[in-house]
Amino acid sequence: MYKAKIKVTLRKSILDPQGKAVEHSIQSLGYKNVKDTRIGKFIELEIDSNSEVEAKKIIDEVCNKLLANPIMEDYEFEITSLTGTGK
Amino acid sequence: MYKAKIKVTLRKSILDPQGKAVEHSIQSLGYKNVKDTRIGKFIELEIDSNSEVEAKKIIDEVCNKLLANPIMEDYEFEITSLTGTGK
Repeated sequence: MYKAKIKVTLRKSILDPQGKAVEHSIQSLGYKNVKDTRIGKFIELEIDSNSEVEAKKIIDEVCNKLLANPIMEDYEFEITSLTGTGK
Repeated sequence: MYKAKIKVTLRKSILDPQGKAVEHSIQSLGYKNVKDTRIGKFIELEIDSNSEVEAKKIIDEVCNKLLANPIMEDYEFEITSLTGTGK
C-alpha cells in the first residue's frame, strides 16, 4: 500500500487567470509584497500494490490520462509506503 | 525574496465528492487498486521580504483569511529562500 501526493501545476508559459485573481485579492488585503501567485491542484490517493515501481507506473499513467493535461500542465509526485500499518 | 508552496486539503472528516468522482474515473480506466482519492489546492507564491519569520507570518495570515477555509480545510506550506537570484 502506497500513498501518493501529486501536484499538478500549469506550465510557466501558460497564463493563470485564477492565480492572478487570487493575487489581486491577497494584495487587496494589504499584502503588497506577494507576487507570482499560481494555483494548481493537489491530489492524494492510495495505491494497493506491493511494488513501488508498479505504484509509480500507475501514478504516471493516471496523471497523463486523467489528472493532468499534458499540453498545459506539469505534474510531480512523491510516494510513501504505508506498510507497517497492517496492510 | 521567498517562494512558498502551499497545500490546502479538506479535513479528513469532510466528504470530498470531487475526490470520489475522480476516483470513480480512475477506476473506470482500469486502475481498481486506487482508493482514498482526495483533491485539494496547490498554491505557489512569492513574498518580497528579507525575513523568513515575516514571510511565514504573511503566509499564515493569507491562508487563514483567504486561501483556506479554516472550518473545512487544513493547510501546510514549505518556504524556500530565493536569495542569490539577484533579489
